[in-house]
Amino acid sequence: MLSDIEICRATYLQPITHIARDAGLLNEEYHPQGKYKAKISLKAIERLRDQKSGKLIVVTAITPTPLGEGKTVTTIGLSQGLKKLNQSVMACIRQPSMGPIFGVKGGAAGGGFSQVAPMEELNLHLTGDIHAVTAAHNLAAAAIDARIYHEQRQGYDAFEKRTGLKALRIDNQQVVWKRVMDHNDRALRMVSVGQNEPNKTINGYEREDGFDISAASELMAILALSKDLKDLRQRIGKIVLAYGLNGLPITTEDLQVAGAMAVSMKEAIEPTMMQTLEGVPTLIHAGPFANIAHGNSSIIADSIATKLCDYTVTEGGFGSDMGFEKACNIKASATDTKPDCAVIVATLRGLKVNSGLYDLKPGAAIPDSLFEPDNDALLAGFENLKWHINNVAKYGVPAVVAINRFPQDSQQELELLQQWVNELELPCGVAISESFAKGGEGAMELGKQVIEACQLPSCFKPLYSLDQSIEEKLMAVTEVGYGAANVTLSYQAQKQLKLYEKHGLNHLAVCLAKTPLSISTDGSVKGAPKGFEVNIRELRLCAGAGFIYALCGNVMTMPGLPDIPAFMALDLDDDGNIVGLS
Amino acid sequence: MLSDIEICRATYLQPITHIARDAGLLNEEYHPQGKYKAKISLKAIERLRDQKSGKLIVVTAITPTPLGEGKTVTTIGLSQGLKKLNQSVMACIRQPSMGPIFGVKGGAAGGGFSQVAPMEELNLHLTGDIHAVTAAHNLAAAAIDARIYHEQRQGYDAFEKRTGLKALRIDNQQVVWKRVMDHNDRALRMVSVGQNEPNKTINGYEREDGFDISAASELMAILALSKDLKDLRQRIGKIVLAYGLNGLPITTEDLQVAGAMAVSMKEAIEPTMMQTLEGVPTLIHAGPFANIAHGNSSIIADSIATKLCDYTVTEGGFGSDMGFEKACNIKASATDTKPDCAVIVATLRGLKVNSGLYDLKPGAAIPDSLFEPDNDALLAGFENLKWHINNVAKYGVPAVVAINRFPQDSQQELELLQQWVNELELPCGVAISESFAKGGEGAMELGKQVIEACQLPSCFKPLYSLDQSIEEKLMAVTEVGYGAANVTLSYQAQKQLKLYEKHGLNHLAVCLAKTPLSISTDGSVKGAPKGFEVNIRELRLCAGAGFIYALCGNVMTMPGLPDIPAFMALDLDDDGNIVGLS
Repeated sequence: MLSDIEICRATYLQPITHIARDAGLLNEEYHPQGKYKAKISLKAIERLRDQKSGKLIVVTAITPTPLGEGKTVTTIGLSQGLKKLNQSVMACIRQPSMGPIFGVKGGAAGGGFSQVAPMEELNLHLTGDIHAVTAAHNLAAAAIDARIYHEQRQGYDAFEKRTGLKALRIDNQQVVWKRVMDHNDRALRMVSVGQNEPNKTINGYEREDGFDISAASELMAILALSKDLKDLRQRIGKIVLAYGLNGLPITTEDLQVAGAMAVSMKEAIEPTMMQTLEGVPTLIHAGPFANIAHGNSSIIADSIATKLCDYTVTEGGFGSDMGFEKACNIKASATDTKPDCAVIVATLRGLKVNSGLYDLKPGAAIPDSLFEPDNDALLAGFENLKWHINNVAKYGVPAVVAINRFPQDSQQELELLQQWVNELELPCGVAISESFAKGGEGAMELGKQVIEACQLPSCFKPLYSLDQSIEEKLMAVTEVGYGAANVTLSYQAQKQLKLYEKHGLNHLAVCLAKTPLSISTDGSVKGAPKGFEVNIRELRLCAGAGFIYALCGNVMTMPGLPDIPAFMALDLDDDGNIVGLS
Repeated sequence: MLSDIEICRATYLQPITHIARDAGLLNEEYHPQGKYKAKISLKAIERLRDQKSGKLIVVTAITPTPLGEGKTVTTIGLSQGLKKLNQSVMACIRQPSMGPIFGVKGGAAGGGFSQVAPMEELNLHLTGDIHAVTAAHNLAAAAIDARIYHEQRQGYDAFEKRTGLKALRIDNQQVVWKRVMDHNDRALRMVSVGQNEPNKTINGYEREDGFDISAASELMAILALSKDLKDLRQRIGKIVLAYGLNGLPITTEDLQVAGAMAVSMKEAIEPTMMQTLEGVPTLIHAGPFANIAHGNSSIIADSIATKLCDYTVTEGGFGSDMGFEKACNIKASATDTKPDCAVIVATLRGLKVNSGLYDLKPGAAIPDSLFEPDNDALLAGFENLKWHINNVAKYGVPAVVAINRFPQDSQQELELLQQWVNELELPCGVAISESFAKGGEGAMELGKQVIEACQLPSCFKPLYSLDQSIEEKLMAVTEVGYGAANVTLSYQAQKQLKLYEKHGLNHLAVCLAKTPLSISTDGSVKGAPKGFEVNIRELRLCAGAGFIYALCGNVMTMPGLPDIPAFMALDLDDDGNIVGLS
């Protein structure tokens, strides 16, 4: 079979102007960026405000292996399947981060005959939104250290006299805004900045700092959760960067940097339209990870898509404990658009890994033996799928299981799995998806089931309401959601919780960062664990995004490169074409 | 008078497709990015290979004040003036760095009625080239630290066995590739990376590191100096990132990251076409600084422009000791296109500062008193202009002085200055330029003089040839060029020189990093200093760019933000328009 990039290159693509026009956008509402990408103006939202919204389908998954279960393939494939069923449809996905592209996972455009195209433009830079987030984020970081430097060097009174600005008296040890970079760069997790030659302060005042990957930036969440440019600007102004020596929060407005940050993100707020290999218009917007961020593409993209067509297919990262939970508890609470249906992607190999009978190390390739028939492992791993079906039901959202078929899969096991789903007490659709090998045609059965599920009466409800206490919200996600026995807070997290309560921040949502490789916070525990504890080691305030960010277990907010990174395969051939991207 | 951004917004701009077509490009040679920007395909160079080249005019300046003398205003104004004289003309400038935009200088699109438009798109992100350079640069940095981590953690033999890769045995203390960021971020000059909790190495191995501004990246120089994509790829492969424990250089090819870096810069190699307020097509490409890099926009942009039109106006950063020196000694030696004429921009206020009679501190605003008539200061400062006229003559390039007029300038002083230039022994044109206030019309006289100068027989010669030794080249630039009494190397620089000689790198050019605020290496020494020493404290190898990078005096490769940074003025108004950008 051809590689992803070869399939993509061999496919005829329509000019993006045709795609945008056929999707119902007016001339002045799209701005082509090259032949196959266009920025979509937020004017479209204004114009379409009174239109009836179509259905929103959120694609989620079982607890995945490190290589993923094919959620994007299924998202794109399903959108193509719905098109083949003569439905009006769009897909909405997040921009891929270059960290995983150069690291373990490779590209994130889908695969086979279900891709967003041109896949190399999606995977590399796109229209620069992640770079804009990175730039705006690091501007604030530079601004804090510069302000500390000038105030301390000149002295507070002299500083006020010289500049006419109020001295902010920032506590060096209480800068809570780290820097970010869109790479997997382990060495930047813990750094010290502002180092100097002995007895000099020419580079500022030394302090401990660190870099997160850009996907984890609060600005990325703000981009995804904002309704419009004004909302973006206001949210940016609420970001707490540091605390003063008096213990009070110092915001971007205090540093007079919020305006410049919003200016820097002015173009990023417009989603980018591309197309799938079968011509389904696809909006790409924001790029958060569901393990260390809220993990869903933007409210703005969904708003445009649901107004323009009857079915919008989007995805939440990783399993339903991760991106789907946040789609329901964070994203849906920030907008009027609620999920009408969930698609749970499962693979035979992924379920077998969830049996716990295979010793699969993170970063390691999946052994061939996983594709051999093994009903015991499949049955044991089925517990994980059941858990995710039940989890989706907690939110009152109808679900369809999509079995993402691999060529090596055994027919007998595929049938067995469908039978098990059909025998569950909880009504739930199930279909085999061959989106990878067959494109939309391979997802028509799935599409039919999804259309049926979308006709069911919606009784969506999140797990908590914003007026509950932060602790109650954490309990709702971990105990009601994950099914943990209980949730505990480290001493540091308890102190932080008290501080946020003192500052009147009880109304914020909660965003949990944890391993995606287990429903629990221990990546080695597979299946459907029970009775486990969730320990929150740190709480970070994201007042602009509108949530408290809780770090569980040993989750890292900056990934590292493996010893055989994906970038080694990448190069240009003699004709200047990219090779080695999949 | 209206602000720059107001003038820009009030001006009718043509669709970039018209500009590109009228410039002589074929449909398939430009790819619009929004309405007013287009990426230009390198196919145009192929097609035009056998066309006769037009004249190349390099705009340079006297030794500038920290606010600049209006070099970009004059570059854009002159191109507009030549258009008004019915000449076929294009401008080629570098992409502005966001460091100075948010820091001291503000935007870099020109100003008044001589701007590249839309100026906010030029100043912010543009088409993402600087971000692509930053991403490719930091990928290599992440790759080194990851390789050190995996090799040391697993052990060399175990690493080779597990991965099938050769252990590189990188010396932690000899990583010469720093990280970069496109911000003025003082606190990142000296950092330590790979820090850990006590007794752990989970974040890698701690070592001293630092960030340069992206403009100083060797990749930025490579982008500007490459002839085509193949050349770019080959140059990237020559970059030395570190040294092994055996003392031998370790390149990007050794790390197998060169291909991915080139892939990441695949779109950045295409110049971006925009237009001036009067519709002159303008190519924007690369963004190096002339103080800490070679400071000229790209060979590719020049190649396209000189083939398409009779006159191409470009600029080299800062005074003629800086960007112009490098345009002649580095850029011209990497291509066939040589400067046919130099324009030296001078201002009355800038010359008066060069008298040394005014105590102007870097970062401080220019006092109003500088605009009062003061013939003594002007005459003293004239020595600096004479120096730059003589300096340009050393390269055999005909020169025209452009006096960039400010509204407060006295007529009497303007006339006096022209008279002094006319009385010089060295023949040199002179014209007052009112590009800022009057656009092209204000630069028609300058345009006429430039056309005349371009008719003179060209006898261009650089100050050194590449087959001289590195020391001879350093002497050529400092002693013959700057007029220094002598050049000395620190102990560290001497050791580095020996190393590079040992590795057979004598054939490289030299690129000096020094303060732009003086011809000497001490920014407080104004005018036309003599008998000074140049001390080189460090030599850095840029084998891909093709030069040895020499750091003089206390020049910094990462600027800092001032205490009242430009970003404070920036914001969005209620209609979502940018305010405060100039």
